[in-house]
Amino acid sequence: MTSQEIFAQIQKKSSFLCVGLDPDIQRIPKHLLKEEDPVFTFNKVIIDHTIDQAVAYKPNLAFYEAMGPAGLETLAKTLEYLPKDTFTIADAKRGDIGNTSRLYAKAFFEQMNFDAITVAPYMGEDSVGPFLEFDGKWVILLALTSNQGSKDFQVIKNQSNQPLYASVLEKSKAWGTTENMMYVVGATRGESIAEVRKLVPDHFLLVPGVGAQGGSLEEVAKFGMNNQCGLLVNSSRGIIYASSGEDFGKAAKKEAILLQEAMAQQLNIYCK
Amino acid sequence: MTSQEIFAQIQKKSSFLCVGLDPDIQRIPKHLLKEEDPVFTFNKVIIDHTIDQAVAYKPNLAFYEAMGPAGLETLAKTLEYLPKDTFTIADAKRGDIGNTSRLYAKAFFEQMNFDAITVAPYMGEDSVGPFLEFDGKWVILLALTSNQGSKDFQVIKNQSNQPLYASVLEKSKAWGTTENMMYVVGATRGESIAEVRKLVPDHFLLVPGVGAQGGSLEEVAKFGMNNQCGLLVNSSRGIIYASSGEDFGKAAKKEAILLQEAMAQQLNIYCK
Repeated sequence: MTSQEIFAQIQKKSSFLCVGLDPDIQRIPKHLLKEEDPVFTFNKVIIDHTIDQAVAYKPNLAFYEAMGPAGLETLAKTLEYLPKDTFTIADAKRGDIGNTSRLYAKAFFEQMNFDAITVAPYMGEDSVGPFLEFDGKWVILLALTSNQGSKDFQVIKNQSNQPLYASVLEKSKAWGTTENMMYVVGATRGESIAEVRKLVPDHFLLVPGVGAQGGSLEEVAKFGMNNQCGLLVNSSRGIIYASSGEDFGKAAKKEAILLQEAMAQQLNIYCK
Repeated sequence: MTSQEIFAQIQKKSSFLCVGLDPDIQRIPKHLLKEEDPVFTFNKVIIDHTIDQAVAYKPNLAFYEAMGPAGLETLAKTLEYLPKDTFTIADAKRGDIGNTSRLYAKAFFEQMNFDAITVAPYMGEDSVGPFLEFDGKWVILLALTSNQGSKDFQVIKNQSNQPLYASVLEKSKAWGTTENMMYVVGATRGESIAEVRKLVPDHFLLVPGVGAQGGSLEEVAKFGMNNQCGLLVNSSRGIIYASSGEDFGKAAKKEAILLQEAMAQQLNIYCK
């Protein structure tokens, strides 16, 4: 998928919403447990009720791996069920030595046909490069995450006063292009997003942490939007667990519409 | 497994060898392809022929995920086949926000019953902590890896002249203990291992990169060994692909014995 195609979806749906498909068997509505594959049924209902608002879907691999080998079957079925014009992200945070990263890339891009995978930067260029060798596929590199622990290492300043996440952006942007590389940038601080935009003005950013983790959509748009939108904002629990009853699909849709309407406003201000 | 139990195995076998079970279906001997589960058969033969020399086995998850859901069944069978007194490491390099790391921990420690998992430090304490909550289980945190890309970020110096990998060691050693935390430290530079030992004198180190990646066992032992040995040195390709013929088991044994004998010498010098 090209950045133009992603932007076309954003314009069509007036939305830059990514829905995190992170289903926990212990949290999905109880009436689903009688289904043959409760998690797949849950995902289908969530997708059906959010597809008009979401331009991207992001299953986090941990939720599927925790179900054992059957979980990967559920993930594969979920991917097949998603319309081909939605952007699909394997939230896997992989990263290993070159030969091994190549195997992960093959698993996620060829066998599972994801459009993108999240990758951890710690092991450097040869751990990221193999993911960049697939036409039309994307690496989404962790830069500044939104969790508490992001303060442990990501903000350590080097001898030029540059925090580690900025070194990651600066160095890694030479490894790929704006057509195969995005960055994870947490939404917890508006000024950090502004700093990120100075270094990577044209790359798409995947922004977690709006909602459950406390970021504000207005701040993210103000500091992060570019003329191709350049943002995918993720919401997981706020949407998929909006209700624990039989109405969970409708409740998810309601939350997705609230976010989409807020996103349409921001697109109207910064990205006409 | 406790560090005492690991050390007891090291003494019993006069070896601190870890065998990387990274089987690639395209590289395993051709005569195995007629087997029902060629990779499991391959692993069994490698284990049978190295069990007297190896105190630990380390399957890299990428090799199993690349085989799809069936690969995880192969991995589970391999784990069951390993004797209970060997130390088993899931080389998975995971690391995610707290709730998600907890799911990975459950998958690797409870469902698959690994003794240890490799974890990437970039997301900080709350991404590592959930792995430390399991009795008798271990986190092996990436500190200084042995690949080319380790120079991209791991050696960036902070304003106190401390490289990132040293900050990782210093900060993270407070998160766990010498009974639930080890570190990955590449063998490519002896003086780096000496630096690591200053910060974590008592932790076990998992050392890749001896052999294929160019480190010297003598250097590793000289700078890295402590009075409980404190080292697990990994070899993957050098052992498992020692021959591509029907004699691959015997060839693997021969390579394992060469390493074990060299290790016995080092134990004799530094850890009597």
